[in-house]
Amino acid sequence: MKSIVFDQILQVKDIPKPVFDGGESVVRVIQAGICNTDLEITKGYYGFKGVLGHEFVGVVESSQTPSLVGTRVVGEINVSCGNCNFCLGGLTRHCSCRTVLGIFGRDGAFREFLTLPEKKLHRIPESISDDAAVFVEPIAAACEIMDQVSFKSADKVAILGDGKLGLLVTMVLAQARKVNGLSEKVTLVGKHPKKMNLVQDLGVHLVERDSATALGKTFDLIIEATGSPEGWTLALSLLKPRGTLVLKSTFNNQMSFNTAPLVVDEITVIGSRCGRFEAAIELLEEKNLDPTPLLQHTLGLDEALKAFELAGHPEVLKVTLQIDACGKM
Amino acid sequence: MKSIVFDQILQVKDIPKPVFDGGESVVRVIQAGICNTDLEITKGYYGFKGVLGHEFVGVVESSQTPSLVGTRVVGEINVSCGNCNFCLGGLTRHCSCRTVLGIFGRDGAFREFLTLPEKKLHRIPESISDDAAVFVEPIAAACEIMDQVSFKSADKVAILGDGKLGLLVTMVLAQARKVNGLSEKVTLVGKHPKKMNLVQDLGVHLVERDSATALGKTFDLIIEATGSPEGWTLALSLLKPRGTLVLKSTFNNQMSFNTAPLVVDEITVIGSRCGRFEAAIELLEEKNLDPTPLLQHTLGLDEALKAFELAGHPEVLKVTLQIDACGKM
Repeated sequence: MKSIVFDQILQVKDIPKPVFDGGESVVRVIQAGICNTDLEITKGYYGFKGVLGHEFVGVVESSQTPSLVGTRVVGEINVSCGNCNFCLGGLTRHCSCRTVLGIFGRDGAFREFLTLPEKKLHRIPESISDDAAVFVEPIAAACEIMDQVSFKSADKVAILGDGKLGLLVTMVLAQARKVNGLSEKVTLVGKHPKKMNLVQDLGVHLVERDSATALGKTFDLIIEATGSPEGWTLALSLLKPRGTLVLKSTFNNQMSFNTAPLVVDEITVIGSRCGRFEAAIELLEEKNLDPTPLLQHTLGLDEALKAFELAGHPEVLKVTLQIDACGKM
Repeated sequence: MKSIVFDQILQVKDIPKPVFDGGESVVRVIQAGICNTDLEITKGYYGFKGVLGHEFVGVVESSQTPSLVGTRVVGEINVSCGNCNFCLGGLTRHCSCRTVLGIFGRDGAFREFLTLPEKKLHRIPESISDDAAVFVEPIAAACEIMDQVSFKSADKVAILGDGKLGLLVTMVLAQARKVNGLSEKVTLVGKHPKKMNLVQDLGVHLVERDSATALGKTFDLIIEATGSPEGWTLALSLLKPRGTLVLKSTFNNQMSFNTAPLVVDEITVIGSRCGRFEAAIELLEEKNLDPTPLLQHTLGLDEALKAFELAGHPEVLKVTLQIDACGKM
């Protein structure tokens, strides 16, 4: 079967199809999204070698539970051991010997068939299109913020970065405000007016990066999703004392900064990674969030190198790979 | 009157005695402690020029409230405006136009008489000696941690750094464990067995820095008080996923680090600075904490340069200046 493999270079490669051995389910991949983490891996981040990809929607081909076969699913990416101290303590997404789909110790979703433990699969209702379902993993990562911090009615919240993750976080937080009847708009700080306009209808306050510092230390909560160390410095200049900075970006390089403002202003910094799929699927099922305006290009597996090139362009948002068109919904 | 002034160089200098003008109280300083922040200021941190010192005990000489005159007091160091958005929001210690005793915009305690607003002064009960009272400010900073984080019975807690602040934090946390009937000992990681032995009787688990990494990712809460960027890296290697790192150190220089582990392990970092004086005075009054074993040298104002030299020695803990011996308790 066809796959996209990274091993020093990125290439389309023919590899054996996984065979169901009574253990992990086999899933026929319909569509898979290219994430910034995939782009970072191709630059050496995590030293991963193998099949890339961790955002997908597919159809179960073989499974221990017969009723699961033929259902459309998305899959959680962290596969835990269930036995280590972290797993036993309920921190399964932080399992010390975990493998991570297409990121660490486990081949990913850019292939015709993948395998994952059955308990990692989540059924996708018919009302959610493939184009939307492929966003479940990053929307869950955005929802994780809601599990980590709470904000009050008068709190001022800003998202830094108008990339894919920044826009999804903006959508999730704008929706949370609406549901909770909060008056204060969320602010999105970005560099690309075209991208920022995608969330204009959600009642978001849009601020261009160059004029952001003029906002002053007025925010209670800032989500850093720029993917650049510069975002950290900007965040510290915009946070009120005792404010909270949620770090979503992982950088490929060391960053240099002065910790003094963090201590003096008693800032709380919270690292934030993957989140609960249930929350993301619920948002999509109830049509409270539509990620599909972010989807700009869908290419076949054979065009994967071109797809990666497109995905790396600063003006481009989501690029997906159409791996099997038969199951298209 | 005599004072210790820093202006590019540190010197003993004769300056005018402050005159009570009906506003701020005038306090005759009995004893004042040299803090690492004082040492950092003499290296250029904060660009402060003026009379150093912010840890003191003294006697009120003149005040708006006649009954206050003659009482022994310590003083809070942040003097807020009361009118800015931060003050009106209850964040008076973070006032945007604050002055800070001996640190920013306000002459400090290394002089025979200082001034502070009356509401910043706290009465010291007779049962607390001068040698103990001079520690109120740094003990309050240690107590601030208890206002910022909570820990559960089974939580593992470590303090990194066996300097003055690290030892005071260890004392405060060991006492909090005792009061709350918690079983798990706190761990102190340090480099100086002599210093670490000062808290041995408090039931603290002592670990030498060189063998600390072998402890693994087993801690729920770590207090970083090494004063060195290396402490940050060590902390991240010892924290469980979703653990909390309280940053007490401010470094004079930029530090370089990789944010990826912070995001991947979803660590919470909390900057922590000054704290409530009430909590510190209560600990001393009830004899639940004795900081005086940390006090190693007390010198006169005339010997200030020698005192600063001593205070900067890695093996030395607290050095104080005896400014007026008449009020000695």
